[in-house]
Amino acid sequence: MQQYTIGLDYGTNSCRSLLINLENGAELGSTVFPYPSGELGILTDPTDPNVARQNPQDYLEGLQFIIRGAIEEAQKNDAHFDPAQVIGIGIDTTGSTPIPVDEEGTPLGLKPEFKDNLNAMVWLWKDHTSHQEAATITAKAEKLRPEYLAKCGGIYSSEWWWSKIWRCQKVDPVVFAAAHSWVEHCDWLPAVLTGTTRPEQISRSTCAAGHKAMFNHEWDGLPDKAFLAELDPDLADLRDRLYDQTFSSAHKAGELTEEWADKLGLPAGIAVAVGAFDAHMGAVGAGVKPGTLVKILGTSTCDITVAPNQKKLADIPGLCGVANESVLPDHYGIEAGQSAVGDIFLWFVHNLVPDSYGKTVGEKFDNMEAALAQQQPGETGLLALDWNNGNRTILVDVRLTGLILGQTLHTQAHEIYRALIEATAFGALTIIKRMQEHGVEVREVINTGGLSLKNESLMQIYADIIGLPMKVAVSEQTCAMGSALYGAVASGAVTLPQAQQANCKLQDRIYYPIAENQQTYAKLYQLYRELHDAFGTAEWQGKMNHIMKDLIAIRQQARTQK
Amino acid sequence: MQQYTIGLDYGTNSCRSLLINLENGAELGSTVFPYPSGELGILTDPTDPNVARQNPQDYLEGLQFIIRGAIEEAQKNDAHFDPAQVIGIGIDTTGSTPIPVDEEGTPLGLKPEFKDNLNAMVWLWKDHTSHQEAATITAKAEKLRPEYLAKCGGIYSSEWWWSKIWRCQKVDPVVFAAAHSWVEHCDWLPAVLTGTTRPEQISRSTCAAGHKAMFNHEWDGLPDKAFLAELDPDLADLRDRLYDQTFSSAHKAGELTEEWADKLGLPAGIAVAVGAFDAHMGAVGAGVKPGTLVKILGTSTCDITVAPNQKKLADIPGLCGVANESVLPDHYGIEAGQSAVGDIFLWFVHNLVPDSYGKTVGEKFDNMEAALAQQQPGETGLLALDWNNGNRTILVDVRLTGLILGQTLHTQAHEIYRALIEATAFGALTIIKRMQEHGVEVREVINTGGLSLKNESLMQIYADIIGLPMKVAVSEQTCAMGSALYGAVASGAVTLPQAQQANCKLQDRIYYPIAENQQTYAKLYQLYRELHDAFGTAEWQGKMNHIMKDLIAIRQQARTQK
Repeated sequence: MQQYTIGLDYGTNSCRSLLINLENGAELGSTVFPYPSGELGILTDPTDPNVARQNPQDYLEGLQFIIRGAIEEAQKNDAHFDPAQVIGIGIDTTGSTPIPVDEEGTPLGLKPEFKDNLNAMVWLWKDHTSHQEAATITAKAEKLRPEYLAKCGGIYSSEWWWSKIWRCQKVDPVVFAAAHSWVEHCDWLPAVLTGTTRPEQISRSTCAAGHKAMFNHEWDGLPDKAFLAELDPDLADLRDRLYDQTFSSAHKAGELTEEWADKLGLPAGIAVAVGAFDAHMGAVGAGVKPGTLVKILGTSTCDITVAPNQKKLADIPGLCGVANESVLPDHYGIEAGQSAVGDIFLWFVHNLVPDSYGKTVGEKFDNMEAALAQQQPGETGLLALDWNNGNRTILVDVRLTGLILGQTLHTQAHEIYRALIEATAFGALTIIKRMQEHGVEVREVINTGGLSLKNESLMQIYADIIGLPMKVAVSEQTCAMGSALYGAVASGAVTLPQAQQANCKLQDRIYYPIAENQQTYAKLYQLYRELHDAFGTAEWQGKMNHIMKDLIAIRQQARTQK
Repeated sequence: MQQYTIGLDYGTNSCRSLLINLENGAELGSTVFPYPSGELGILTDPTDPNVARQNPQDYLEGLQFIIRGAIEEAQKNDAHFDPAQVIGIGIDTTGSTPIPVDEEGTPLGLKPEFKDNLNAMVWLWKDHTSHQEAATITAKAEKLRPEYLAKCGGIYSSEWWWSKIWRCQKVDPVVFAAAHSWVEHCDWLPAVLTGTTRPEQISRSTCAAGHKAMFNHEWDGLPDKAFLAELDPDLADLRDRLYDQTFSSAHKAGELTEEWADKLGLPAGIAVAVGAFDAHMGAVGAGVKPGTLVKILGTSTCDITVAPNQKKLADIPGLCGVANESVLPDHYGIEAGQSAVGDIFLWFVHNLVPDSYGKTVGEKFDNMEAALAQQQPGETGLLALDWNNGNRTILVDVRLTGLILGQTLHTQAHEIYRALIEATAFGALTIIKRMQEHGVEVREVINTGGLSLKNESLMQIYADIIGLPMKVAVSEQTCAMGSALYGAVASGAVTLPQAQQANCKLQDRIYYPIAENQQTYAKLYQLYRELHDAFGTAEWQGKMNHIMKDLIAIRQQARTQK
């Protein structure tokens, strides 16, 4: 008898479902629910652009809509499909996206007395109101607990758990006092479906805790009370009402309650997996395994790989996070990323590409890609840094900006576009090198996300610069796919390697490095790396006067070869 | 009785005349003659883009056309004007633009046997076929005669006299052998009008000889034979058939012949001044004097000032040229320049400005100027280097390229345009500082050229960055104006200071520095100078990692002030 599983992917502006046949990964149903509250699902504050909150009610409404929608679609697509054959549900969300809850686990934002208070709502990952708190946490940890920072790349972010909670404590003591505990969005939804929302019952995600809450078994789980008291005694008190145990998504958060089974049209008692963050589930759904790096190529990127945890992995400076079992059981999850990739191309096409390339953004991209495909590596004479939105890995510094050099009076827009693509590839290579230098094996890259599907020039440039085969996942919903696989694993029906083997499909087209291009790009990467270290690190000291001349020499050689 | 004088300005694509009333600078007649030969007057070679030659016949045809045209126009504009009242003619041309001539001073290109040979034609300044010869001259002089290079900024250019002549000797020995001597374009035309074309009769220009032929009285005029023989013995032989004396344009080259007086409709016997290069005459026509720098703001810039020659002026490293009496009698002429200014803006608007700013280049510039005028200094967060076409002064290095940094995901085209304007102003300030550091007084800047007349935002940014009053010449033909003044001076009717006083008018609007803007720009200039020295000099060594952070801090402050 066929078995089916459902993955739910809660993004920044909407949530979506994916119902698959566990035998072959066939995607039978998928439904999207745009969050109805705020602007594109985000509650904002006109007086402070850093505010980004969400309404927990949106999550609940979406739950029913997207699961019922997927089931209906699957019934249309496959006459033999029966909802009784669904064996599990897995869930991923954005993060760190903490929710203040009362003793029952009810989000404060759902209670009448707080319904108009933004601070009682969900604090979305991209809320940056706590940048000052993040800086103080980093400074205190540097002095008192450097080991905490070593696990999250050396700098604690305003996008993370403790910064946001501390901010709430500072700006809204009433909400903070009313919050018995705080729960990650990815932990709250499985708790809702399994009737385990009381804070002491919730199965907390190893992924969320390890990457964003400084939870680690090298010390006693969460940061110790003495350290938290250095921030504020209230945070030390809160620690007692949080957790001291976490679970990978291979575990059940619980079983689907009768009440939710009725609402959703699914069998009661099926497994609901412990939640995790979207990118980590995306890596699972794309087929991450030791030696394989999954690159989620979107407006920004998330780069995820794993390493077996039999051998202790040394800290990797500048990586966003290393957390045990955050991606696969029995493996360290290793997460890195670039703050802007697609966003840089969008910025360029919207602001600096004349209409001679086309009337629409799509036409401009198409015509620039056609033009740059005619060029040899090095032929533009240009070199750029991919820092228009700062550098997440390996510099962990938001106070960095873009740079481009090598322009002449003949430089054209598509050449700059090529240089920007190359810059993001050099940034990607820098991340992979950093991993490899610290004992993490990377032999191939599986790409997922819009750019990997529609930009062939970009994929070939990535292969040539990174020097590894570039593969592309077939599924366009790898996050929901990963969650779905974990739903099945949590049910006990399959192991994760079995589930990945059967369901994670790759496209036939693989982009292999071209040796001749690799040689030129090796030279350009040396120059990129010098600019990177010079503008991005306090340690670098040296000379810059050869950079422009070397670029001219490389350009000359590329033109001669042509 | 009124006196009139005529200036002739021979440019790259056309020549023009200007007939003025010497009492008040009133411009009574002006005629343009586009050179009929080649592409826009330039003879090219489809197999080598470096070739740029001219047909001497074009110069002769133009002579008659533009002088007769100016006289006719003046007769229409002023009923009392009589050509008999014209007291002198002055001439400026591009340079170094050498012409191979026979023993009579006839250009070889006018002789039937050479009429189809590009090497027998005029070698236009922008002919770059001799870049290898220029490099060898620089290398030999560095080793054997460093004093030669000290007068021309340390590097001998392919745009100059000896490079071109040597190139001809190498590639076309027949033409070289047929050339009894070589004459600068600016020396040949006065010789034609005064019947002194035999090479030994020609009055050679101090300006041309001093700036481009390494002629200096600190040694024995032209480079010595031993040095020239190191290049090629043929050049040492040629030296005997060149010159050992030069003249400023305050001297007469001779008197107008009967034959030319008839052709032109002017009195025979009137003074024809010794010629000079266009930019130097432009400085004179704009009113250059000690303490006043004249900036000719065009696609590139030429910056010219003077210093009294009673006191010996030390060499100024990186300046294109210092030559005694090349601009004003009794003064050193000091010449510098930026390889691209207007050209950088044109490159940007043609290649990187979307049509949301307008449909035409003019509309795009207008709308960008309106938008950038709303911004405070520092508010863009951007910093650029003005090197898209290399750096003439003070680095004298064509192997440099553009750079821009500070881009975010919100940077707009008009902000980059502002950063490019600022970069050219920082480049201008660097030149002025270099002059001041070496004892040359600069208290004000008189601007001339298209950008000074039509771009108010640019002029204010220049005032704020350079920190000096920016004045603008009224005449749009300052080169021809300067030549006209020298025509009168050569006649003995007036001194040059008298002529400048009466004729060089300034616009009423003066752009003064705004103290608040100056403060911000002083900080930005420090950063510009660090980038300039880091990317442009072998000596610099240091750190770059504060640059982006300093720009963010300056941006933040600018936004707060607003």
